[in-house]
Amino acid sequence: MDIHDLITSLREQNDGKIVMLVSDGIGGLPMKPGGLTELETAKTPNLDALAKDGVQGLSIPIKPGITPGSGPGHLGLFGYDPLKYIIGRGALEAAGIGFAMTDKDVAIRGNFCTVDKSGNISDRRAGRIPSEESAEVVKKLRVIKIPGVELFVEPVKEHRFVLVIRGEGLGDAVADTDPQKTGVPPLDPVAHDAASKKTAEVAKEFFTQAQKILANESKANSLTLRGFAKKPHMPSYEELYGLKSACIAVYPMYKGLASFVGMSLVGTPVTLSEEIDVLEKEWKNYDFFFVHFKYTDSRGEDGNFDEKVKMIEELDKIIPRISALKPACLVVTGDHSTPAKMASHSFHPVPTLIVSDLARTDATEHYGERDAVLGGLGQFEAMYLMPLAMAHAGKLGKFGA
Amino acid sequence: MDIHDLITSLREQNDGKIVMLVSDGIGGLPMKPGGLTELETAKTPNLDALAKDGVQGLSIPIKPGITPGSGPGHLGLFGYDPLKYIIGRGALEAAGIGFAMTDKDVAIRGNFCTVDKSGNISDRRAGRIPSEESAEVVKKLRVIKIPGVELFVEPVKEHRFVLVIRGEGLGDAVADTDPQKTGVPPLDPVAHDAASKKTAEVAKEFFTQAQKILANESKANSLTLRGFAKKPHMPSYEELYGLKSACIAVYPMYKGLASFVGMSLVGTPVTLSEEIDVLEKEWKNYDFFFVHFKYTDSRGEDGNFDEKVKMIEELDKIIPRISALKPACLVVTGDHSTPAKMASHSFHPVPTLIVSDLARTDATEHYGERDAVLGGLGQFEAMYLMPLAMAHAGKLGKFGA
Repeated sequence: MDIHDLITSLREQNDGKIVMLVSDGIGGLPMKPGGLTELETAKTPNLDALAKDGVQGLSIPIKPGITPGSGPGHLGLFGYDPLKYIIGRGALEAAGIGFAMTDKDVAIRGNFCTVDKSGNISDRRAGRIPSEESAEVVKKLRVIKIPGVELFVEPVKEHRFVLVIRGEGLGDAVADTDPQKTGVPPLDPVAHDAASKKTAEVAKEFFTQAQKILANESKANSLTLRGFAKKPHMPSYEELYGLKSACIAVYPMYKGLASFVGMSLVGTPVTLSEEIDVLEKEWKNYDFFFVHFKYTDSRGEDGNFDEKVKMIEELDKIIPRISALKPACLVVTGDHSTPAKMASHSFHPVPTLIVSDLARTDATEHYGERDAVLGGLGQFEAMYLMPLAMAHAGKLGKFGA
Repeated sequence: MDIHDLITSLREQNDGKIVMLVSDGIGGLPMKPGGLTELETAKTPNLDALAKDGVQGLSIPIKPGITPGSGPGHLGLFGYDPLKYIIGRGALEAAGIGFAMTDKDVAIRGNFCTVDKSGNISDRRAGRIPSEESAEVVKKLRVIKIPGVELFVEPVKEHRFVLVIRGEGLGDAVADTDPQKTGVPPLDPVAHDAASKKTAEVAKEFFTQAQKILANESKANSLTLRGFAKKPHMPSYEELYGLKSACIAVYPMYKGLASFVGMSLVGTPVTLSEEIDVLEKEWKNYDFFFVHFKYTDSRGEDGNFDEKVKMIEELDKIIPRISALKPACLVVTGDHSTPAKMASHSFHPVPTLIVSDLARTDATEHYGERDAVLGGLGQFEAMYLMPLAMAHAGKLGKFGA
């Protein structure tokens, strides 16, 4: 019996709402050993008040020492073992631009590249052509038609684009065509199983037609295809938890990840304040709300300690609006740490706070890394956060008599 | 290699005794966030003295967020993965009344119900008839004879009873006959595999004969059968740990659970003090003692915070008698938390204390929830408590050279 079977067999309905507020990359590091982290530096009176009565701890996104990307980071928070449920690169890329995949789709990450007269790759990223130029080239590829399938070509950033092949009988076990080096031509797409043969054939035909269309481009005169991936197959929030769930996010990537687990994408907020407007407006319509705040991660990725501190303080200011809705369980967490010192995602566990009438108050009084170490939730794998949230909302019954 | 293989290959004999004192449901919650729990409120000078020199931590009964019943809760403490070793409902019910199951038995939970003239169920619990009435009806069913098997019918509480079928070739994969609704007749017992065909046939014959006997009862004029279950199959304490083990408990349920893992049931104590009398008397005869104290759970289930505090104080008073026996390792724990605030079992981890010459003393000075968070044992799944107890008693050798 695994944890999903357990939850599905024990879940109970009640009127309580769960809010999971994900401040992306909120965990951090002191700039110098012994100093304060971003979260410890920020003035967060509202979060500290919650920490005083609630219970906090540290969420380990994957396993100790492992740094997650946004995909596995969020899957863990949503309660799916990120080492079991793998989102293929193509599907993640499609999610990242808000492309709504169906079960008939194979999504592929495309890179424009430059080839020489012999057809050998001279630049694997086509000189990182600007996004606007790239988008124009993408438009040209949309004339490609292949019988029996529907094709979608969508621009991403710079030399990157997404190709989605939609049709019946398309497997995704196809090898990348990027040889990962220059001086050789793009590889043929090779199917690793019989079910993926048609996909490989379509990809090859796409490449052949694209080569002709791109022949006169100065930089983006060829392309490689990587990360062939179907929509990941996982139980939905409704199936797993019996929760009607909503995603409130600004960026397409997080909406895409939420849609993979069956959350409804509600509202079109642009600011954090607008996200809370949506939360208030939709309060009666859902049992579970995933609210995503991006900028703690962005400023961490920029390596900007002070600006990340400010973003945390922005987050703190909207807390009273969430508390006023009286969720049965409020979770404040992040999908990973993004220390400004590293200017990247990191492996460090994430300060995580649970506020509920059923929280066993611990001795901590501030939401932050040093306090979280001493918190009552201890250190736990992120995939157990949803069972904890369900339990703190009184939505899980007893196992065995 | 799993943890059981590991223990069996590493176990070593010595003269040290292990006492596991299980205070049922001892973990709790403050009545208001920020307040003290039952255990933190209780005056426990003896337990605190142990905490000062020993090491404490938090035991997670099953997995984070999962509330256990008594069965899985105790299996975890005994070192058996409660998600792997599942005790069927019928077997647990049999354990609960102290019925000693053999390997030839299938135990079934019976419910008396009321049916109308068409044979449709009008009350699934026969008006919850008083236990005394129910016991009389049970006696009438004891005249039923079925060739090739032996039958035992035992009263439980109100409308509930236990039926045990003893014989050769009896599987337990038989569907419940309770349709879980009124207005329809009890279902036929259906076997899910060939090995359970005979069981289903016997159950059907039992039902047919019972219907005739019960025809004139005003309320309990029919019955349903649920949770067909053989005695759970698991290695015994002797096989797994090489420990000669004894159970000292007042209530049948806990004796039953202990007998599933091969513990000897010693004494017939009624009070906690009598339980310690038995411990003293049997001290030389066993390596391991499971001592069960029920009333911390009972008062928690009653929702009575103050009375639960008193029960904890009662427990504290007998500690010196246990210490005087000089166990190599004394464990104080619970099978789960039962916060008076919730008046039920809960998912919260359980303060757990180990006293031994080999304990690595931590900085805590009181046995209780807030201190346990900061204790040297950290948070760990209950199934690792027995390896920890064995190790602290010097009974586990080195793995690998």
